Amino acid sequence: MGLMTREQYIESLRKLKPTAYMFGERITNIVDNPRLRAGIEATAVTYEVAEKDEYRGLAVTQSPLINEPVNRFTLPPSSIEDLVARVKLNRKVANLVGTCHQRCTGLDCLSSLSIVTYDIDKKYGTKYYENFIKFLKHMQKNDLTGNAAVTDVKGDRSLGPTEQKDRDMYLHVVEKRDDGIVVRGAKAHQTGSLSCHEIIVLPTRALGKGDQDYAVSFAVPADTKGLIHVVGRSSLDTRELDGCDLGNFRYSKYCPTIIFNDVFVPWERVFMCGETEFTSEMVVRFSSFHRQSHGGCKAGKIDCMIGASLTMMDYNGTQKAGHLKQKVIDMIHRAETLYGCCLASSYEGKKEPSGTYFIDTVLANASKIHEGKELSEAMRLMVDICGGYVADLPSDRDFDNSEIGDLLKKYMKGAEGVPVENRVKMFRLVEKMALESADTISDIHGGGSPEAHRVTLFRESDTESKKKLAKRLAGIED
Amino acid sequence: MGLMTREQYIESLRKLKPTAYMFGERITNIVDNPRLRAGIEATAVTYEVAEKDEYRGLAVTQSPLINEPVNRFTLPPSSIEDLVARVKLNRKVANLVGTCHQRCTGLDCLSSLSIVTYDIDKKYGTKYYENFIKFLKHMQKNDLTGNAAVTDVKGDRSLGPTEQKDRDMYLHVVEKRDDGIVVRGAKAHQTGSLSCHEIIVLPTRALGKGDQDYAVSFAVPADTKGLIHVVGRSSLDTRELDGCDLGNFRYSKYCPTIIFNDVFVPWERVFMCGETEFTSEMVVRFSSFHRQSHGGCKAGKIDCMIGASLTMMDYNGTQKAGHLKQKVIDMIHRAETLYGCCLASSYEGKKEPSGTYFIDTVLANASKIHEGKELSEAMRLMVDICGGYVADLPSDRDFDNSEIGDLLKKYMKGAEGVPVENRVKMFRLVEKMALESADTISDIHGGGSPEAHRVTLFRESDTESKKKLAKRLAGIED
Amino acid sequence: MGLMTREQYIESLRKLKPTAYMFGERITNIVDNPRLRAGIEATAVTYEVAEKDEYRGLAVTQSPLINEPVNRFTLPPSSIEDLVARVKLNRKVANLVGTCHQRCTGLDCLSSLSIVTYDIDKKYGTKYYENFIKFLKHMQKNDLTGNAAVTDVKGDRSLGPTEQKDRDMYLHVVEKRDDGIVVRGAKAHQTGSLSCHEIIVLPTRALGKGDQDYAVSFAVPADTKGLIHVVGRSSLDTRELDGCDLGNFRYSKYCPTIIFNDVFVPWERVFMCGETEFTSEMVVRFSSFHRQSHGGCKAGKIDCMIGASLTMMDYNGTQKAGHLKQKVIDMIHRAETLYGCCLASSYEGKKEPSGTYFIDTVLANASKIHEGKELSEAMRLMVDICGGYVADLPSDRDFDNSEIGDLLKKYMKGAEGVPVENRVKMFRLVEKMALESADTISDIHGGGSPEAHRVTLFRESDTESKKKLAKRLAGIED
Amino acid sequence: MGLMTREQYIESLRKLKPTAYMFGERITNIVDNPRLRAGIEATAVTYEVAEKDEYRGLAVTQSPLINEPVNRFTLPPSSIEDLVARVKLNRKVANLVGTCHQRCTGLDCLSSLSIVTYDIDKKYGTKYYENFIKFLKHMQKNDLTGNAAVTDVKGDRSLGPTEQKDRDMYLHVVEKRDDGIVVRGAKAHQTGSLSCHEIIVLPTRALGKGDQDYAVSFAVPADTKGLIHVVGRSSLDTRELDGCDLGNFRYSKYCPTIIFNDVFVPWERVFMCGETEFTSEMVVRFSSFHRQSHGGCKAGKIDCMIGASLTMMDYNGTQKAGHLKQKVIDMIHRAETLYGCCLASSYEGKKEPSGTYFIDTVLANASKIHEGKELSEAMRLMVDICGGYVADLPSDRDFDNSEIGDLLKKYMKGAEGVPVENRVKMFRLVEKMALESADTISDIHGGGSPEAHRVTLFRESDTESKKKLAKRLAGIED
Repeated sequence: MGLMTREQYIESLRKLKPTAYMFGERITNIVDNPRLRAGIEATAVTYEVAEKDEYRGLAVTQSPLINEPVNRFTLPPSSIEDLVARVKLNRKVANLVGTCHQRCTGLDCLSSLSIVTYDIDKKYGTKYYENFIKFLKHMQKNDLTGNAAVTDVKGDRSLGPTEQKDRDMYLHVVEKRDDGIVVRGAKAHQTGSLSCHEIIVLPTRALGKGDQDYAVSFAVPADTKGLIHVVGRSSLDTRELDGCDLGNFRYSKYCPTIIFNDVFVPWERVFMCGETEFTSEMVVRFSSFHRQSHGGCKAGKIDCMIGASLTMMDYNGTQKAGHLKQKVIDMIHRAETLYGCCLASSYEGKKEPSGTYFIDTVLANASKIHEGKELSEAMRLMVDICGGYVADLPSDRDFDNSEIGDLLKKYMKGAEGVPVENRVKMFRLVEKMALESADTISDIHGGGSPEAHRVTLFRESDTESKKKLAKRLAGIED
Repeated sequence: MGLMTREQYIESLRKLKPTAYMFGERITNIVDNPRLRAGIEATAVTYEVAEKDEYRGLAVTQSPLINEPVNRFTLPPSSIEDLVARVKLNRKVANLVGTCHQRCTGLDCLSSLSIVTYDIDKKYGTKYYENFIKFLKHMQKNDLTGNAAVTDVKGDRSLGPTEQKDRDMYLHVVEKRDDGIVVRGAKAHQTGSLSCHEIIVLPTRALGKGDQDYAVSFAVPADTKGLIHVVGRSSLDTRELDGCDLGNFRYSKYCPTIIFNDVFVPWERVFMCGETEFTSEMVVRFSSFHRQSHGGCKAGKIDCMIGASLTMMDYNGTQKAGHLKQKVIDMIHRAETLYGCCLASSYEGKKEPSGTYFIDTVLANASKIHEGKELSEAMRLMVDICGGYVADLPSDRDFDNSEIGDLLKKYMKGAEGVPVENRVKMFRLVEKMALESADTISDIHGGGSPEAHRVTLFRESDTESKKKLAKRLAGIED
Repeated sequence: MGLMTREQYIESLRKLKPTAYMFGERITNIVDNPRLRAGIEATAVTYEVAEKDEYRGLAVTQSPLINEPVNRFTLPPSSIEDLVARVKLNRKVANLVGTCHQRCTGLDCLSSLSIVTYDIDKKYGTKYYENFIKFLKHMQKNDLTGNAAVTDVKGDRSLGPTEQKDRDMYLHVVEKRDDGIVVRGAKAHQTGSLSCHEIIVLPTRALGKGDQDYAVSFAVPADTKGLIHVVGRSSLDTRELDGCDLGNFRYSKYCPTIIFNDVFVPWERVFMCGETEFTSEMVVRFSSFHRQSHGGCKAGKIDCMIGASLTMMDYNGTQKAGHLKQKVIDMIHRAETLYGCCLASSYEGKKEPSGTYFIDTVLANASKIHEGKELSEAMRLMVDICGGYVADLPSDRDFDNSEIGDLLKKYMKGAEGVPVENRVKMFRLVEKMALESADTISDIHGGGSPEAHRVTLFRESDTESKKKLAKRLAGIED
Repeated sequence: MGLMTREQYIESLRKLKPTAYMFGERITNIVDNPRLRAGIEATAVTYEVAEKDEYRGLAVTQSPLINEPVNRFTLPPSSIEDLVARVKLNRKVANLVGTCHQRCTGLDCLSSLSIVTYDIDKKYGTKYYENFIKFLKHMQKNDLTGNAAVTDVKGDRSLGPTEQKDRDMYLHVVEKRDDGIVVRGAKAHQTGSLSCHEIIVLPTRALGKGDQDYAVSFAVPADTKGLIHVVGRSSLDTRELDGCDLGNFRYSKYCPTIIFNDVFVPWERVFMCGETEFTSEMVVRFSSFHRQSHGGCKAGKIDCMIGASLTMMDYNGTQKAGHLKQKVIDMIHRAETLYGCCLASSYEGKKEPSGTYFIDTVLANASKIHEGKELSEAMRLMVDICGGYVADLPSDRDFDNSEIGDLLKKYMKGAEGVPVENRVKMFRLVEKMALESADTISDIHGGGSPEAHRVTLFRESDTESKKKLAKRLAGIED
């Protein structure tokens, strides 16, 4: 079939009939629900960039697998160039949507599986890589969007999967049949699970002996039987529903929890089933890829925040204030730090046995640690620069009110020559970028908790060699 | 009349008929509007503490003016002890409401006016202090809540009041009559302007020659003719209206913009009118008092955030994680820093000519600078500790849904023995404390912008004497 | 005898004959050794301030014990006013010396012992308080300087005192005799141990059962038999010896390790001997007092650093650079934060059973945590402001050289009208304040390690009550 | 001649007879002066790495110019690979010396001149590129070390070169002759100017009309007539002279000020003379290259600091303390951030008209901004981890003293099995790395002041395009 256009993508979603709930109600028309649509539109931009000359060179590449042009979001990296393009494309799409585009997690799964299934097969003579390659062709040929289902709900976090009172707190195989497996459990924070075609499941943590039932990876269509999407609330979630005070004119993000209520998976869609000793590798691959995806994406979001800040300075008449310029520099510095570390992690990537390239984990985690702390700081700086009306601007409906609208427009005026509507819109955008919970909290918890990034950084660094350096300098013979 | 009970306070608001708009509609019943009511309830706690034995010693004191017990929120400080009590009371009330209680700004106005009106009269033989004392008696005798109207909308911020194309961008006198003055303009970020009885107006900045019309201070009832309250949007504002997913069970905050559409003020309610050389003092007094109010209050809010974090650790089974405990310590450190600097600014206060005590400005601003940066960090730490469900927890309505409610309750379970409802409620509270814009943005912009706090710190520090110290140590004779 | 003058103090040290080593050599004339003298001069300022009208009100007070005027550095606080004066006096003396004055630790011991010996006696009917009071009278009547010996060398830090292979790694009693005890061990970082008259020993950590021999406190003259002072190196230690490139014209700091090589202590000088359950209290009292001493002192040092920075801006012609002014504000903010938290910890002090007042521990530790991180930052800012010549300014001897001196003076010239000598002196002072190890490292490790401050903050905070606040707000019934 | 060995390099310096002063005395034997030698040894490592198999692949490459293998420190980058190797080589050499190796500045000059002289010639038909290429061949063929002389002493920093009362405050041409030019002025912070063969002068700032005499670039031998090196003091400078308490066993850093007291430069060594409009480009090229050199180098120094910290944890028995491990992670994070941004700036480099490759300036400055702030923090963390004896460890001479040496060795013992000598040596190394002024202050001021890095970051970022992104998202048509 080949690359989809934006419209084809949206139409393709209409054909799916997922089980979805929001605000306690069943949602049957996903695509036309304004809140979900705003998320779908963000993902749609990953299709648009493949259509436009300006971005096509970055967004589209030839697949060595199917020997056709494919969207990069379906391509496990097979060169350093591919690793670098990941970062640049994520920044660019984030520039266009100003939020999460929601298609990176699927790619991060495909990339990880293309390494690990190969490694498992090599050891056990299984057929996971074959299954995976077949699935990958399906994704590439039809230009599909995948969605990573990784984070189990975990119950009591001091206990492992089999120690939980309710053993369903981590997704696991409850039945093995001739034609496939049946799985049960729930995965949290499934950004865009209703904007995708396929849900790709990976284990959320390294597993040990006795945990075999939890060592499972597979893919199922987003509307497969027994799969329930419950869209969680986010801080500004009624804005899209009301169609008013949007901030971001077209794009947004939503995050369901998805429940696998005894879902059947045919064997040809299974990529791991019981090989606990490969779970650690799977987690490291996926989380590293995903932390790197964040680096490009969030640098791109800060670009939008910088742009909003500078525009608001123009609108407020504060464009010459030295202290505000210093704050903009602090924002730029944060964006480029994320980006620089991620780019470096790409350029320093290495080829794995399957042929897929893997990034430098240390540098990818270095970037993510900055994100976890500094995105919040960038938001604070943006709010500082833009002013108090980020907190409490009257509604568009107030501006439209016949009794008070004109008074509000009079008093909300900023610098001469700037239409008051523009200033109002920019305040709304700043509010959206600073305070939309679904997006902002992924800065902290996306790709694992901040502590996970730190532990990885330590573990992957060669600390013993550093001790030797110090001893040599001190004149200590060891 | 004397101290009001919580119920009397709420009933007293029913008697007022302010002109108010929200979401583009006129609101006539303020008290029973769920969103406004959540704010009113927060202010009501300042009345409740005066009733309860546990807090009464802190909340109630004898007024030397009317010789009756009064609520501290109507008492300009007449001793160091009063200055200290301000901080402790603000922290305590914040502990109880977990957000802004919205009654401090009125007190900060009363405190400032009790100093500055005296100083003006001394120079000009005017009657402002007399006017003010009469007004103060009215406030104390009836236990009223005042609301500070300070922040003009400002138009182009690179221009002064008279340089604006539209000269109404700063509130000013448009007519002087025998019986009073008529004023026009708009004031932004009027937290709780519909929860109060009296609006007290101060100029927002130091003014110079030619700005006489803008050098105006006065008080009017919240429902005075020509005064329009437009309640701005905040990030979680539809939650109270929906009565669902509240987070903070009872309290919230709302922030109107108020428009003075040619409002008449009788002379006896005027506290400054044209004395531009006292505007600087007025701004410094008010902003210092208000920055200090923040220190107590926000320390109290961090207490709630710490409590939520520790409780969530219990609920998640992460109470033994060393890295999370370190983050809690970081939160405690921030709370105590705000509190310590504010307490010190009280203890180091000085008596002014009118008899009112004024705080140490340097220390009050030192506290506020921390708030502007560190509250955001405390929120980030809380979200880090509590986990990703702050972003996207399903709605209470989902939990109540007959098809998926039980599944959700099963999968949202945390540590054994903790009712899932409690964990859900605590996630909601964390979401509220981290992401409610009306409250969180006051950390940054309340009491003036961050740069204003810094400039004040520099100006009020004796930098010349520090140069002398250094020269003496270096052996330089000057 | 009464208050000593500066000269009397220095002469009083001549009478002592301590065993001292430095750079591998025995030092017999302490007072005239230029390096030690620079430290003695710093302590001498604590005597000078008692002589001068400008400071006398702060430095001298009436002792309720001996009913004579005494230097505050010999007075356990017996009122809130005394607690506050501690902080202000420390800041003032630091302003005058620009480094550590080295007399606070003795006072911190006296203050702690005046609480804990009383408490021990109350429980055990011992005579420690009587011993202590007698010792205190001796200190006050003769205006002596005490020196706290607290930090044991500790050997393997993962092991307790009795677990060490060499049991002398913590100071302990090796013999009990009728007339007294014999002790052995070593104490590290004994700032000013040769500038003092009496060494006051406290245990360094809380001790348990079986550690009785280590639970020992006493005082001995600085030149008691068996006591060896080994003056450690510091980064700029040869400057005073060379009498060249001093930076700080008169004052400095030195830190010996002292070894108790079987030192005899008469019973009347013993303040604790075996009461392990009081060691925890002793450590908390002392460390809290000492952390608070730091707050006043280091705020005073930052004052000097601010003065040096602003003066250098004058000298370099950069006084109008906005970004440098911002950095000065950052320095002021740090100074006032330390000071504010410490002042508050004084004002919030409480009376102990013995009549001595004790500070608020939480606030004192809040201050110290800032010191441990922010002094280093203040130094960085100072160096940033002042410029690269802090690193590598030619020597005074180069400036005096007949061949190159004039060329150097020509090229080191800054702003017109500033003598080049002054600019050179100021660079040297900045170098001294930024890079003198003995002083700068006490910012980090003085009063216990940074982690100790944090653990104390957590332990002393009422975290359970904070959980209750959060539960109430969330609507959780417990 | 080809690559020199370590010994040949040191011997080559013996042939030079520079005019040098230190501590007010003329130094004639540079190579055997222990302080200068420690610096020379650091540079010597850049020759050693070219000899050793382990490093040769990184350190040696084929010069396209002379068609021979050359040391990378004489090679302007002619490919992305060369740009990347710069960073990796700097990190590696820093790993080996634990301080500044002092050969990067010369390379940064060569790299900049290879771009800018070409550009000038293209515009003006001058012969600077030809001169430069001849000079470059000389450097490559003889494997020489160059030293960048950039930072003028500047006098009153609020004034430009020609506004200074003494016009020599910036180096300038005082005479043009047929055979060359005569220059006068002084350059500060000339790290390693006595360890090099050639001094390469560039202007320190962008110049305008009327500043022609200051727009001058050239190279002269380090011992050219009229050139005076005055070695400045650094904080630990007497340690090498004493041969005791070194810390870093073999390597150190020294920084002269050099005075051009009417130095003659033949025309063939002149690379710019009067072309003011190219000074801005020269400054940007050099400072960008040099800021990037820092990133690799300082990451390598942090590696040594991490190694020292972890080793000290082993020695102190604190290797299991979780809070210390967190601090090590903070150090690793800083190292990898510097490194990542610098690597990315290389990989994103571009080819200039002359064929030389230039790095991405934004990313190089992003790295340097981190260095200016975070190296100081890394040092603080190292000192925190290692303990208070960094401040005041007794001298090696004390340990050697027959009376107290054994006592000291007894009490300085750490964990069982660790020779006390090793612990002492490691403390000394930490002292050296934390407190050696010549090295540590280059973190702040090396490659221009911190503000310069920030201004560059802003100027080189495309801020206008970011505004457009924000406006599009907000729905604003411009």
